[in-house]
Amino acid sequence: MSAIPSSIPLRNDLLGEEPYGAPQLDVPVCLNVNENPYPLEPDVVSSIAQRVASIAAELNRYPDREHIELRQAFSDYLAKESGTRLRVEQLWGANGSNEIMLQLFQAFGGPGRTALGCDPTYSMYPEYARDTFTTWKLAHRHEDFTLDVDRTIDAINEYGPSMVLVTSPNNPTGTVLPHDEIEALLAACEQAPVTGAPEGAHPILIVDEAYVEFRDPGTPSAVSLVPKHHNLAVSRTMSKAFAFAGARVGYLAADEGIIDAVRIVRMPYHLSAVTQAAALAAFEHTDEQLSTVAHLRQTREQTASWLAQQHYHGENIRVAPSGSNFVLFGTFERRETIFQDLLDRGVLIRVVGPEGWLRVCMGTDEEMARFRQAFTEVLALHDQA
Amino acid sequence: MSAIPSSIPLRNDLLGEEPYGAPQLDVPVCLNVNENPYPLEPDVVSSIAQRVASIAAELNRYPDREHIELRQAFSDYLAKESGTRLRVEQLWGANGSNEIMLQLFQAFGGPGRTALGCDPTYSMYPEYARDTFTTWKLAHRHEDFTLDVDRTIDAINEYGPSMVLVTSPNNPTGTVLPHDEIEALLAACEQAPVTGAPEGAHPILIVDEAYVEFRDPGTPSAVSLVPKHHNLAVSRTMSKAFAFAGARVGYLAADEGIIDAVRIVRMPYHLSAVTQAAALAAFEHTDEQLSTVAHLRQTREQTASWLAQQHYHGENIRVAPSGSNFVLFGTFERRETIFQDLLDRGVLIRVVGPEGWLRVCMGTDEEMARFRQAFTEVLALHDQA
Repeated sequence: MSAIPSSIPLRNDLLGEEPYGAPQLDVPVCLNVNENPYPLEPDVVSSIAQRVASIAAELNRYPDREHIELRQAFSDYLAKESGTRLRVEQLWGANGSNEIMLQLFQAFGGPGRTALGCDPTYSMYPEYARDTFTTWKLAHRHEDFTLDVDRTIDAINEYGPSMVLVTSPNNPTGTVLPHDEIEALLAACEQAPVTGAPEGAHPILIVDEAYVEFRDPGTPSAVSLVPKHHNLAVSRTMSKAFAFAGARVGYLAADEGIIDAVRIVRMPYHLSAVTQAAALAAFEHTDEQLSTVAHLRQTREQTASWLAQQHYHGENIRVAPSGSNFVLFGTFERRETIFQDLLDRGVLIRVVGPEGWLRVCMGTDEEMARFRQAFTEVLALHDQA
Repeated sequence: MSAIPSSIPLRNDLLGEEPYGAPQLDVPVCLNVNENPYPLEPDVVSSIAQRVASIAAELNRYPDREHIELRQAFSDYLAKESGTRLRVEQLWGANGSNEIMLQLFQAFGGPGRTALGCDPTYSMYPEYARDTFTTWKLAHRHEDFTLDVDRTIDAINEYGPSMVLVTSPNNPTGTVLPHDEIEALLAACEQAPVTGAPEGAHPILIVDEAYVEFRDPGTPSAVSLVPKHHNLAVSRTMSKAFAFAGARVGYLAADEGIIDAVRIVRMPYHLSAVTQAAALAAFEHTDEQLSTVAHLRQTREQTASWLAQQHYHGENIRVAPSGSNFVLFGTFERRETIFQDLLDRGVLIRVVGPEGWLRVCMGTDEEMARFRQAFTEVLALHDQA
């Protein structure tokens, strides 16, 4: 990043800021951005190419602004994955769940409005707030990273946020939010006023389910609550379990009123015809795309167990219980040196979350073997130091 | 659009707003959104499918956040199209020039900041301002739609905008901005202060060149001024002359400092690997993609001449001189009825611009013949009334 000349009228509150994002390094083992490590199968690749070819001649024309066919595919997928059938009017797609969240902040945030998060949590949330001039407030989680429901409800009543963001499984801790806690938060939201909004408005509860396919089988998704609640928005993505990060497809399940609010602020034609075609092709292979999820869940359990048996300066390493495809572990006096020592051995993980913790995402069996090998070496190195 | 329930805390200033966009109707002749009417050739389609297939196996991974290869392709294209070679650091891509503009407003706008436009002009500009809480001010154009340079410079000095938006060719009027006027505006911007910014900051001049490939051959593009000016941003798109609207690729040519400012507010991984692949494939066929431009320019001249010979209630129809792929014509007492009468005959144009005017975009020869036929009928109908 070059120095931005002072003649350029950058927003005052952005002076000195850096672009968000993990380093994109050319490293043998990348376990840093919570991707599904398994590439797409040849028949999925072939379907994508065919679908794109079938619409490419008409790329001189604008895409379907309402992406109806894709919203139908979200509906079909969620009916299967979560057991809840939603109508097209209750669904909405965007370029990654990043854009879904930005659109929600654009519709419901702004100067005089507050959004409430429960930290430690996803580090992009404050950026959405910053980019929409929304005040960002926090209700801290318990020491073990579970949600402090009482404190969160107190904060809802104290701040009158227009949006309450909870993440399940949470990033970077992996913590799953129990269904009854989501319902308790919803009940609180449906009573609370919103600072800066007309009387009768209540906070929207946004449940970010980016990693939800990795939860234990049988656990309900917040999608099941959408038909009964006007003020619930569930954000989902094809980037994680669905192994489609490169295509940038996030989606929103919510009451029609929330979708219509988002439609006011969306850029016209925000979702390209190519993206729509590629996503439709991927959804034709849902079982294949999700075929690695059970194994990644197993890898997570094995990795968590293995990490918990390792020692750092004589003490057992702590591992946060995870319902996701990553594990947060620690704590380390200087986590940056552990990160760098692993990187020197060709393994890229992520420095993120509370001080002293590190996050590793689940790779292939070979990648995890290399991670364990490298981490064993690094621990030995630090024990000698 | 459903009624948004009052329990949903929509931003107060969005209450009653509608989503932006022309109606997407299933009509035989669509001349309403300024697309290139010619579909892509089979060899271009084939290249797109191949490029997408070549990256699809790795769609489990996030895309290149910096889209370096695509920025190199923008550089190559502009070197050929405008005669100016820019570095990758002076270029930036996004999902349509809509997103380019939104990112500029996010970086340089906001509460306490002002953006200045020259109306009549593109009707999305006030929406970017609204969505970023930027004050939107106007310097009116002359009666003939040419820019009132003196008035615009006065407004720059009066309002201290952080951004000055000019459009060349202008939408919906088609008016081309002479090169010396762009230079005069730049000179004014480089002297003017910015309200709400630190001393030493000057307004950015944003030249929206969405339709620039339709200009008369030999006319310089504002891109040629980028290497010499820190405060110039030129927005471009592949959606119009380049016949790639469905793929949603806009780009920005500007000083590295402006690009770096945009990088702070962009969503991480905003541009999908599929979009990057499709755009790279299309750029391999630049000559083919642009092969219809000369003919569309000719169609515009013929259509403008023909329209100017038609009569409405005994008077010659007025036609705004256009350097684009559309023509603004009028004026009509009730333009909505003309629009509807044409639509009833299967021809969709656009009600946009100053009261009484209508805009028609250049279609294929067959489509223009149907437009002329329908319009002749409609004029006869109105003459009888």
